[in-house]
Amino acid sequence: MVGKVIIAGGGPGDEGLLTLRCIEALRSADVVIYDRLIPRSALNYVRQGAQLIYAGKEPGRHTMEEDEIIRIMISEAGNGKTVVRLHGGDAFLFGRGFEECVAVLSAGIPCEVIPGVTSAIAAPEAYLIPPVLRGVSSSVAIVTGTEDPRKGRSFVNFRELAKAVNTIIILMGASRIGEIARELIEGGLDPGTYVAVITRAYMENSKVVITTVDKLSSGEVGVENPSVIVVGDVVREGLKAMRIAGISFEMNV
Amino acid sequence: MVGKVIIAGGGPGDEGLLTLRCIEALRSADVVIYDRLIPRSALNYVRQGAQLIYAGKEPGRHTMEEDEIIRIMISEAGNGKTVVRLHGGDAFLFGRGFEECVAVLSAGIPCEVIPGVTSAIAAPEAYLIPPVLRGVSSSVAIVTGTEDPRKGRSFVNFRELAKAVNTIIILMGASRIGEIARELIEGGLDPGTYVAVITRAYMENSKVVITTVDKLSSGEVGVENPSVIVVGDVVREGLKAMRIAGISFEMNV
Repeated sequence: MVGKVIIAGGGPGDEGLLTLRCIEALRSADVVIYDRLIPRSALNYVRQGAQLIYAGKEPGRHTMEEDEIIRIMISEAGNGKTVVRLHGGDAFLFGRGFEECVAVLSAGIPCEVIPGVTSAIAAPEAYLIPPVLRGVSSSVAIVTGTEDPRKGRSFVNFRELAKAVNTIIILMGASRIGEIARELIEGGLDPGTYVAVITRAYMENSKVVITTVDKLSSGEVGVENPSVIVVGDVVREGLKAMRIAGISFEMNV
Repeated sequence: MVGKVIIAGGGPGDEGLLTLRCIEALRSADVVIYDRLIPRSALNYVRQGAQLIYAGKEPGRHTMEEDEIIRIMISEAGNGKTVVRLHGGDAFLFGRGFEECVAVLSAGIPCEVIPGVTSAIAAPEAYLIPPVLRGVSSSVAIVTGTEDPRKGRSFVNFRELAKAVNTIIILMGASRIGEIARELIEGGLDPGTYVAVITRAYMENSKVVITTVDKLSSGEVGVENPSVIVVGDVVREGLKAMRIAGISFEMNV
Protein backbone atom coordinates (compact mmCIF):
# COMPACT_ATOMS: atom_id res chain seq x y z
CA MET A 1 0.00 0.00 0.00
CA VAL A 2 1.28 3.46 -0.87
CA GLY A 3 1.86 5.95 1.93
CA LYS A 4 1.83 9.70 1.62
CA VAL A 5 3.95 12.80 1.82
CA ILE A 6 3.05 15.86 3.87
CA ILE A 7 4.96 19.02 3.02
CA ALA A 8 4.68 21.37 5.98
CA GLY A 9 5.85 24.85 6.88
CA GLY A 10 7.31 24.91 10.39
CA GLY A 11 7.26 28.67 10.81
CA PRO A 12 10.17 30.98 11.65
CA GLY A 13 11.78 29.04 14.51
CA ASP A 14 9.49 29.46 17.52
CA GLU A 15 7.70 26.29 18.60
CA GLY A 16 4.67 28.43 19.47
CA LEU A 17 4.33 29.40 15.82
CA LEU A 18 3.77 25.81 14.70
CA THR A 19 0.24 25.21 13.46
CA LEU A 20 -2.06 22.49 14.78
CA ARG A 21 -2.00 20.72 11.41
CA CYS A 22 1.80 20.74 11.37
CA ILE A 23 1.92 19.18 14.84
CA GLU A 24 -0.65 16.58 13.87
CA ALA A 25 1.44 15.74 10.80
CA LEU A 26 4.61 15.36 12.90
CA ARG A 27 2.76 13.04 15.31
CA SER A 28 1.60 10.85 12.41
CA ALA A 29 5.00 10.66 10.73
CA ASP A 30 7.04 7.51 10.15
CA VAL A 31 9.80 9.58 8.55
CA VAL A 32 10.57 13.29 9.07
CA ILE A 33 12.93 15.10 6.73
CA TYR A 34 13.70 18.48 8.28
CA ASP A 35 15.53 21.68 7.37
CA ARG A 36 18.07 23.74 9.26
CA LEU A 37 15.78 26.65 10.20
CA ILE A 38 12.93 24.83 11.94
CA PRO A 39 12.12 25.10 15.64
CA ARG A 40 14.23 22.25 17.02
CA SER A 41 11.62 21.41 19.66
CA ALA A 42 9.21 20.61 16.80
CA LEU A 43 10.92 17.24 16.65
CA ASN A 44 9.64 16.48 20.17
CA TYR A 45 6.22 15.87 18.62
CA VAL A 46 7.59 13.01 16.52
CA ARG A 47 6.87 9.56 17.97
CA GLN A 48 9.64 7.31 19.29
CA GLY A 49 10.95 5.05 16.56
CA ALA A 50 10.18 7.39 13.67
CA GLN A 51 13.13 8.12 11.39
CA LEU A 52 14.59 11.64 11.52
CA ILE A 53 16.58 12.86 8.52
CA TYR A 54 18.40 16.20 8.57
CA ALA A 55 18.27 17.83 5.13
CA GLY A 56 20.80 20.54 5.86
CA LYS A 57 20.09 23.43 3.50
CA GLU A 58 23.06 25.55 4.39
CA PRO A 59 23.51 28.59 2.13
CA GLY A 60 25.09 27.60 -1.19
CA ARG A 61 24.41 23.90 -0.74
CA HIS A 62 20.75 23.67 -1.77
CA THR A 63 20.64 22.10 -5.19
CA MET A 64 23.08 19.30 -4.48
CA GLU A 65 20.81 17.70 -1.93
CA GLU A 66 17.38 18.26 -3.45
CA ASP A 67 17.38 15.18 -5.70
CA GLU A 68 18.31 13.01 -2.76
CA ILE A 69 15.53 14.49 -0.59
CA ILE A 70 12.98 13.78 -3.31
CA ARG A 71 14.33 10.26 -3.86
CA ILE A 72 13.92 9.43 -0.15
CA MET A 73 10.41 10.92 0.01
CA ILE A 74 9.22 8.86 -2.95
CA SER A 75 10.95 5.69 -1.83
CA GLU A 76 9.68 5.81 1.79
CA ALA A 77 6.13 6.86 0.91
CA GLY A 78 6.17 4.23 -1.85
CA ASN A 79 6.79 1.67 0.89
CA GLY A 80 3.66 2.75 2.75
CA LYS A 81 5.27 5.27 5.09
CA THR A 82 3.90 8.68 6.09
CA VAL A 83 6.71 11.07 5.25
CA VAL A 84 6.67 14.61 6.65
CA ARG A 85 8.89 17.11 4.90
CA LEU A 86 9.34 19.93 7.43
CA HIS A 87 10.47 23.27 6.06
CA GLY A 88 11.37 26.44 7.93
CA GLY A 89 8.83 29.24 7.40
CA ASP A 90 6.43 28.38 4.58
CA ALA A 91 7.38 25.59 2.19
CA PHE A 92 6.25 27.40 -0.98
CA LEU A 93 7.94 30.76 -0.31
CA PHE A 94 11.51 30.10 -1.48
CA GLY A 95 11.40 26.66 0.15
CA ARG A 96 11.38 24.21 -2.80
CA GLY A 97 8.20 22.69 -1.37
CA PHE A 98 6.38 23.08 -4.66
CA GLU A 99 9.03 21.20 -6.64
CA GLU A 100 8.98 18.44 -4.02
CA CYS A 101 5.19 18.25 -4.16
CA VAL A 102 5.12 17.97 -7.96
CA ALA A 103 7.83 15.29 -7.94
CA VAL A 104 5.92 13.25 -5.35
CA LEU A 105 2.56 13.62 -7.12
CA SER A 106 4.18 12.69 -10.45
CA ALA A 107 5.39 9.46 -8.84
CA GLY A 108 1.76 8.61 -8.05
CA ILE A 109 2.05 9.35 -4.34
CA PRO A 110 -0.53 11.48 -2.50
CA CYS A 111 0.84 14.77 -1.26
CA GLU A 112 -0.65 17.19 1.27
CA VAL A 113 0.63 20.73 1.77
CA ILE A 114 0.38 22.62 5.07
CA PRO A 115 1.15 26.35 4.92
CA GLY A 116 3.31 27.84 7.62
CA VAL A 117 3.97 31.24 9.17
CA THR A 118 6.48 32.81 6.79
CA SER A 119 9.61 34.42 8.23
CA ALA A 120 9.34 37.12 5.57
CA ILE A 121 6.42 38.68 7.44
CA ALA A 122 6.89 37.25 10.94
CA ALA A 123 10.53 38.31 11.41
CA PRO A 124 9.80 42.04 10.89
CA GLU A 125 6.66 41.64 13.00
CA ALA A 126 8.78 40.42 15.93
CA TYR A 127 10.27 43.93 15.95
CA LEU A 128 6.95 45.69 15.27
CA ILE A 129 7.86 46.52 11.68
CA PRO A 130 4.76 46.30 9.47
CA PRO A 131 5.25 45.10 5.87
CA VAL A 132 2.54 47.53 4.74
CA LEU A 133 0.82 50.41 6.48
CA ARG A 134 -2.03 52.67 5.51
CA GLY A 135 -0.70 55.98 4.19
CA VAL A 136 2.89 54.68 4.13
CA SER A 137 2.98 51.46 2.11
CA SER A 138 0.31 49.68 0.08
CA SER A 139 2.60 47.14 -1.55
CA VAL A 140 5.34 44.79 -0.45
CA ALA A 141 7.63 42.71 -2.63
CA ILE A 142 9.21 39.57 -1.21
CA VAL A 143 12.29 38.56 -3.15
CA THR A 144 15.31 36.32 -2.92
CA GLY A 145 18.73 37.94 -2.70
CA THR A 146 20.43 34.76 -3.86
CA GLU A 147 19.86 33.69 -7.42
CA ASP A 148 20.07 30.21 -8.84
CA PRO A 149 23.56 30.08 -10.38
CA ARG A 150 22.14 27.95 -13.22
CA LYS A 151 19.99 30.85 -14.34
CA GLY A 152 23.10 32.68 -15.51
CA ARG A 153 21.64 36.15 -14.91
CA SER A 154 20.11 38.10 -12.08
CA PHE A 155 16.39 37.37 -12.13
CA VAL A 156 15.20 39.93 -9.58
CA ASN A 157 15.37 43.38 -11.17
CA PHE A 158 16.16 45.54 -8.16
CA ARG A 159 16.42 48.67 -10.33
CA GLU A 160 12.80 48.36 -11.47
CA LEU A 161 11.67 47.17 -8.07
CA ALA A 162 13.08 50.31 -6.40
CA LYS A 163 10.17 52.50 -7.48
CA ALA A 164 7.46 49.92 -8.14
CA VAL A 165 6.66 48.92 -4.57
CA ASN A 166 6.72 50.73 -1.21
CA THR A 167 8.35 47.95 0.82
CA ILE A 168 10.95 45.40 -0.26
CA ILE A 169 11.62 42.33 1.89
CA ILE A 170 14.74 40.39 0.94
CA LEU A 171 15.33 36.81 2.05
CA MET A 172 18.72 35.10 1.71
CA GLY A 173 20.33 38.43 0.88
CA ALA A 174 23.31 38.37 3.25
CA SER A 175 26.04 37.61 0.73
CA ARG A 176 24.90 40.02 -1.99
CA ILE A 177 23.38 42.93 -0.02
CA GLY A 178 25.96 45.55 -1.08
CA GLU A 179 25.28 44.94 -4.76
CA ILE A 180 21.52 44.87 -4.16
CA ALA A 181 21.64 48.19 -2.30
CA ARG A 182 23.62 49.77 -5.16
CA GLU A 183 21.05 48.51 -7.69
CA LEU A 184 18.21 49.96 -5.60
CA ILE A 185 19.93 53.37 -5.55
CA GLU A 186 20.56 53.19 -9.31
CA GLY A 187 16.85 52.45 -9.69
CA GLY A 188 16.00 55.72 -7.98
CA LEU A 189 15.56 54.72 -4.35
CA ASP A 190 16.56 57.45 -1.89
CA PRO A 191 19.93 56.30 -0.41
CA GLY A 192 18.71 57.51 2.98
CA THR A 193 15.81 55.03 2.96
CA TYR A 194 15.76 53.08 6.21
CA VAL A 195 16.51 49.37 6.28
CA ALA A 196 15.90 46.88 9.07
CA VAL A 197 18.16 43.85 9.15
CA ILE A 198 16.50 41.22 11.35
CA THR A 199 18.80 38.34 12.26
CA ARG A 200 17.75 35.02 13.84
CA ALA A 201 14.17 36.17 14.57
CA TYR A 202 12.40 33.93 17.10
CA MET A 203 15.69 32.16 17.84
CA GLU A 204 18.42 32.69 20.42
CA ASN A 205 20.42 35.91 20.05
CA SER A 206 17.93 37.48 17.68
CA LYS A 207 18.53 41.14 16.89
CA VAL A 208 17.59 44.00 14.61
CA VAL A 209 19.90 46.60 13.09
CA ILE A 210 18.38 49.79 11.69
CA THR A 211 20.48 51.24 8.91
CA THR A 212 20.15 52.84 5.47
CA VAL A 213 20.43 51.66 1.87
CA ASP A 214 23.47 53.93 1.58
CA LYS A 215 25.34 52.23 4.46
CA LEU A 216 24.64 48.82 2.96
CA SER A 217 25.73 49.90 -0.53
CA SER A 218 29.10 51.14 0.80
CA GLY A 219 29.67 47.93 2.75
CA GLU A 220 29.85 49.91 6.01
CA VAL A 221 27.09 47.71 7.40
CA GLY A 222 27.07 43.99 6.68
CA VAL A 223 24.43 41.32 7.08
CA GLU A 224 24.70 38.00 8.92
CA ASN A 225 22.95 34.80 7.95
CA PRO A 226 20.03 34.10 8.42
CA SER A 227 18.50 37.55 8.10
CA VAL A 228 15.34 39.10 6.78
CA ILE A 229 16.03 42.54 5.28
CA VAL A 230 13.24 45.14 5.13
CA VAL A 231 13.67 48.22 2.93
CA GLY A 232 11.22 51.12 3.02
CA ASP A 233 9.53 53.84 5.04
CA VAL A 234 7.69 51.24 7.14
CA VAL A 235 11.00 50.79 8.97
CA ARG A 236 10.74 54.35 10.40
CA GLU A 237 7.25 53.53 11.68
CA GLY A 238 8.48 50.29 13.21
CA LEU A 239 11.30 52.19 14.87
CA LYS A 240 8.81 54.53 16.54
CA ALA A 241 6.83 51.52 17.77
CA MET A 242 9.99 49.79 19.09
CA ARG A 243 10.88 52.93 21.04
CA ILE A 244 7.41 53.12 22.62
CA ALA A 245 7.52 49.39 23.44
CA GLY A 246 11.06 49.58 24.82
CA ILE A 247 12.39 46.95 22.41
CA SER A 248 16.18 46.95 21.97
CA PHE A 249 17.66 47.68 18.58
CA GLU A 250 21.02 48.65 17.08
CA MET A 251 21.12 51.89 15.16
CA ASN A 252 23.61 52.59 12.38
CA VAL A 253 22.22 55.29 10.10
CA MET B 1 -3.28 46.70 37.75
CA VAL B 2 -2.98 47.10 34.02
CA GLY B 3 -3.77 44.12 31.79
CA LYS B 4 -2.45 43.54 28.32
CA VAL B 5 -3.41 43.29 24.69
CA ILE B 6 -2.43 40.40 22.43
CA ILE B 7 -2.79 41.04 18.70
CA ALA B 8 -2.92 37.67 16.96
CA GLY B 9 -3.19 36.41 13.40
CA GLY B 10 -5.77 33.63 13.17
CA GLY B 11 -4.70 32.35 9.76
CA PRO B 12 -6.82 31.95 6.64
CA GLY B 13 -9.92 30.30 8.12
CA ASP B 14 -8.93 26.70 8.91
CA GLU B 15 -8.78 25.86 12.62
CA GLY B 16 -5.80 23.62 11.87
CA LEU B 17 -3.80 26.64 10.74
CA LEU B 18 -4.03 28.34 14.13
CA THR B 19 -0.67 28.50 15.88
CA LEU B 20 -0.01 27.20 19.39
CA ARG B 21 0.64 30.72 20.64
CA CYS B 22 -2.64 31.97 19.19
CA ILE B 23 -4.56 29.17 20.94
CA GLU B 24 -2.77 29.85 24.22
CA ALA B 25 -3.69 33.54 23.87
CA LEU B 26 -7.36 32.69 23.25
CA ARG B 27 -7.39 30.44 26.33
CA SER B 28 -5.97 33.26 28.48
CA ALA B 29 -8.37 35.92 27.20
CA ASP B 30 -10.91 37.84 29.26
CA VAL B 31 -12.06 39.69 26.14
CA VAL B 32 -11.76 38.58 22.50
CA ILE B 33 -12.36 41.05 19.69
CA TYR B 34 -12.57 39.08 16.45
CA ASP B 35 -12.82 39.75 12.73
CA ARG B 36 -15.09 38.33 10.05
CA LEU B 37 -12.54 36.07 8.36
CA ILE B 38 -11.27 34.00 11.28
CA PRO B 39 -11.88 30.28 11.75
CA ARG B 40 -15.14 30.34 13.72
CA SER B 41 -14.12 27.28 15.74
CA ALA B 42 -11.20 29.33 17.09
CA LEU B 43 -13.69 30.80 19.55
CA ASN B 44 -14.14 27.34 21.09
CA TYR B 45 -10.76 27.83 22.77
CA VAL B 46 -12.06 30.86 24.66
CA ARG B 47 -13.08 30.08 28.26
CA GLN B 48 -16.69 30.30 29.45
CA GLY B 49 -17.51 33.75 30.73
CA ALA B 50 -15.03 35.62 28.57
CA GLN B 51 -16.50 38.46 26.54
CA LEU B 52 -16.70 37.99 22.75
CA ILE B 53 -16.92 41.09 20.56
CA TYR B 54 -17.47 40.84 16.81
CA ALA B 55 -15.55 43.57 15.00
CA GLY B 56 -17.20 43.09 11.62
CA LYS B 57 -14.76 44.33 8.98
CA GLU B 58 -17.02 43.97 6.01
CA PRO B 59 -15.58 45.50 2.82
CA GLY B 60 -16.01 49.28 2.78
CA ARG B 61 -16.76 49.53 6.49
CA HIS B 62 -13.27 49.32 7.98
CA THR B 63 -12.36 52.81 9.11
CA MET B 64 -15.62 53.59 10.84
CA GLU B 65 -15.14 50.89 13.43
CA GLU B 66 -11.40 51.09 14.05
CA ASP B 67 -11.51 53.89 16.65
CA GLU B 68 -14.12 51.97 18.61
CA ILE B 69 -12.06 48.75 18.51
CA ILE B 70 -9.04 50.61 19.85
CA ARG B 71 -11.10 52.36 22.50
CA ILE B 72 -12.41 49.02 23.81
CA MET B 73 -8.93 47.42 23.78
CA ILE B 74 -7.43 50.25 25.82
CA SER B 75 -10.35 50.51 28.21
CA GLU B 76 -10.59 46.75 28.96
CA ALA B 77 -6.83 46.22 29.24
CA GLY B 78 -6.64 49.37 31.35
CA ASN B 79 -9.03 47.62 33.76
CA GLY B 80 -6.66 44.70 34.14
CA LYS B 81 -8.15 42.45 31.47
CA THR B 82 -6.28 40.31 28.96
CA VAL B 83 -7.65 41.40 25.60
CA VAL B 84 -7.03 39.27 22.50
CA ARG B 85 -7.54 41.00 19.17
CA LEU B 86 -7.98 38.14 16.69
CA HIS B 87 -7.40 38.99 13.03
CA GLY B 88 -7.89 36.81 9.97
CA GLY B 89 -4.60 35.84 8.29
CA ASP B 90 -1.72 37.87 9.70
CA ALA B 91 -2.53 41.03 11.65
CA PHE B 92 0.22 43.16 10.08
CA LEU B 93 -0.44 42.30 6.40
CA PHE B 94 -3.31 44.65 5.55
CA GLY B 95 -4.91 43.92 8.91
CA ARG B 96 -4.54 47.20 10.89
CA GLY B 97 -2.81 45.23 13.64
CA PHE B 98 0.15 47.61 13.62
CA GLU B 99 -2.02 50.70 14.15
CA GLU B 100 -3.82 48.92 16.99
CA CYS B 101 -0.51 47.90 18.56
CA VAL B 102 0.89 51.44 18.46
CA ALA B 103 -2.32 52.89 19.90
CA VAL B 104 -2.27 50.39 22.77
CA LEU B 105 1.45 50.89 23.52
CA SER B 106 1.00 54.67 23.41
CA ALA B 107 -1.68 54.32 26.11
CA GLY B 108 0.91 52.67 28.34
CA ILE B 109 -0.50 49.16 27.94
CA PRO B 110 1.72 46.15 27.15
CA CYS B 111 1.07 44.67 23.72
CA GLU B 112 2.18 41.32 22.33
CA VAL B 113 1.99 40.43 18.64
CA ILE B 114 1.56 36.87 17.35
CA PRO B 115 2.12 36.38 13.60
CA GLY B 116 -0.32 34.22 11.68
CA VAL B 117 -0.40 32.20 8.48
CA THR B 118 -1.19 34.82 5.84
CA SER B 119 -3.95 34.10 3.33
CA ALA B 120 -1.87 35.85 0.66
CA ILE B 121 0.45 32.83 0.54
CA ALA B 122 -1.73 30.09 2.04
CA ALA B 123 -4.74 30.55 -0.26
CA PRO B 124 -2.73 29.94 -3.48
CA GLU B 125 -0.92 27.10 -1.70
CA ALA B 126 -4.27 25.35 -1.07
CA TYR B 127 -4.46 24.97 -4.86
CA LEU B 128 -0.77 24.15 -5.30
CA ILE B 129 0.06 27.55 -6.77
CA PRO B 130 3.54 28.64 -5.64
CA PRO B 131 4.10 32.39 -5.10
CA VAL B 132 7.64 32.01 -6.42
CA LEU B 133 9.38 29.19 -8.26
CA ARG B 134 12.95 28.67 -9.34
CA GLY B 135 13.34 29.53 -13.03
CA VAL B 136 9.81 31.01 -13.21
CA SER B 137 9.49 33.65 -10.50
CA SER B 138 12.04 35.09 -8.06
CA SER B 139 9.85 37.90 -6.76
CA VAL B 140 6.32 38.31 -5.51
CA ALA B 141 4.49 41.52 -4.68
CA ILE B 142 1.59 41.45 -2.25
CA VAL B 143 -0.68 44.46 -2.70
CA THR B 144 -4.10 45.71 -1.75
CA GLY B 145 -6.65 46.20 -4.50
CA THR B 146 -8.68 48.56 -2.33
CA GLU B 147 -7.17 51.90 -1.49
CA ASP B 148 -7.89 54.09 1.48
CA PRO B 149 -10.35 56.69 0.13
CA ARG B 150 -8.71 59.31 2.35
CA LYS B 151 -5.50 58.99 0.38
CA GLY B 152 -7.16 60.63 -2.61
CA ARG B 153 -5.04 58.80 -5.19
CA SER B 154 -4.23 55.26 -6.13
CA PHE B 155 -1.23 54.27 -4.09
CA VAL B 156 -0.35 50.95 -5.73
CA ASN B 157 1.20 51.65 -9.13
CA PHE B 158 0.06 48.62 -11.10
CA ARG B 159 1.63 49.98 -14.30
CA GLU B 160 5.12 49.95 -12.76
CA LEU B 161 4.43 46.75 -10.89
CA ALA B 162 3.57 44.91 -14.12
CA LYS B 163 7.20 44.49 -15.16
CA ALA B 164 9.00 44.85 -11.84
CA VAL B 165 8.03 41.53 -10.25
CA ASN B 166 7.27 38.06 -11.57
CA THR B 167 4.21 37.34 -9.42
CA ILE B 168 1.55 39.75 -8.16
CA ILE B 169 -0.81 38.71 -5.37
CA ILE B 170 -3.77 41.03 -4.87
CA LEU B 171 -5.84 41.04 -1.69
CA MET B 172 -9.20 42.81 -1.42
CA GLY B 173 -9.23 43.29 -5.19
CA ALA B 174 -12.75 42.07 -5.99
CA SER B 175 -14.39 45.43 -6.60
CA ARG B 176 -11.61 47.00 -8.67
CA ILE B 177 -10.12 44.03 -10.56
CA GLY B 178 -11.15 45.19 -14.07
CA GLU B 179 -9.36 48.51 -13.63
CA ILE B 180 -6.34 46.80 -12.08
CA ALA B 181 -6.11 44.35 -15.00
CA ARG B 182 -6.23 47.22 -17.49
CA GLU B 183 -3.45 49.04 -15.63
CA LEU B 184 -1.31 45.88 -15.66
CA ILE B 185 -1.75 45.57 -19.45
CA GLU B 186 -0.94 49.28 -19.92
CA GLY B 187 2.19 48.63 -17.89
CA GLY B 188 3.33 46.02 -20.38
CA LEU B 189 2.02 42.77 -18.92
CA ASP B 190 1.06 40.20 -21.55
CA PRO B 191 -2.79 40.16 -21.60
CA GLY B 192 -2.63 36.38 -21.91
CA THR B 193 -0.87 36.06 -18.52
CA TYR B 194 -2.67 33.53 -16.37
CA VAL B 195 -4.51 34.57 -13.24
CA ALA B 196 -5.83 32.39 -10.42
CA VAL B 197 -8.77 33.73 -8.45
CA ILE B 198 -9.00 31.81 -5.19
CA THR B 199 -12.23 32.38 -3.31
CA ARG B 200 -12.95 31.37 0.31
CA ALA B 201 -9.76 29.31 0.67
CA TYR B 202 -9.87 26.97 3.67
CA MET B 203 -13.59 27.72 4.14
CA GLU B 204 -16.77 26.08 2.89
CA ASN B 205 -17.37 26.28 -0.88
CA SER B 206 -13.82 27.32 -1.62
CA LYS B 207 -12.88 27.38 -5.30
CA VAL B 208 -10.30 28.51 -7.81
CA VAL B 209 -10.92 30.02 -11.24
CA ILE B 210 -8.07 30.08 -13.75
CA THR B 211 -8.39 32.96 -16.18
CA THR B 212 -6.29 35.65 -17.88
CA VAL B 213 -5.53 39.32 -17.28
CA ASP B 214 -7.37 40.01 -20.55
CA LYS B 215 -10.63 38.36 -19.39
CA LEU B 216 -10.51 40.31 -16.14
CA SER B 217 -9.80 43.60 -17.92
CA SER B 218 -12.85 43.16 -20.19
CA GLY B 219 -15.09 42.30 -17.26
CA GLU B 220 -15.87 38.90 -18.79
CA VAL B 221 -14.67 37.27 -15.57
CA GLY B 222 -15.56 38.80 -12.21
CA VAL B 223 -14.23 38.21 -8.72
CA GLU B 224 -16.21 37.38 -5.58
CA ASN B 225 -15.35 38.49 -2.08
CA PRO B 226 -13.20 37.30 -0.29
CA SER B 227 -10.65 36.28 -2.91
CA VAL B 228 -6.91 36.14 -3.30
CA ILE B 229 -5.86 36.93 -6.87
CA VAL B 230 -2.56 35.58 -8.22
CA VAL B 231 -1.13 37.02 -11.46
CA GLY B 232 1.88 35.48 -13.18
CA ASP B 233 3.43 32.46 -14.83
CA VAL B 234 3.43 30.56 -11.54
CA VAL B 235 -0.29 30.01 -12.17
CA ARG B 236 0.51 27.80 -15.18
CA GLU B 237 2.81 25.72 -13.00
CA GLY B 238 0.14 25.46 -10.31
CA LEU B 239 -2.34 24.37 -12.95
CA LYS B 240 -0.08 21.50 -14.00
CA ALA B 241 0.23 20.44 -10.36
CA MET B 242 -3.55 20.63 -9.80
CA ARG B 243 -4.08 18.38 -12.82
CA ILE B 244 -1.61 15.78 -11.53
CA ALA B 245 -3.18 15.94 -8.07
CA GLY B 246 -6.73 15.75 -9.41
CA ILE B 247 -7.79 19.01 -7.75
CA SER B 248 -10.95 20.60 -9.21
CA PHE B 249 -10.71 24.02 -10.80
CA GLU B 250 -12.76 26.23 -13.12
CA MET B 251 -11.10 27.27 -16.35
CA ASN B 252 -12.00 30.44 -18.23
CA VAL B 253 -9.09 31.47 -20.46
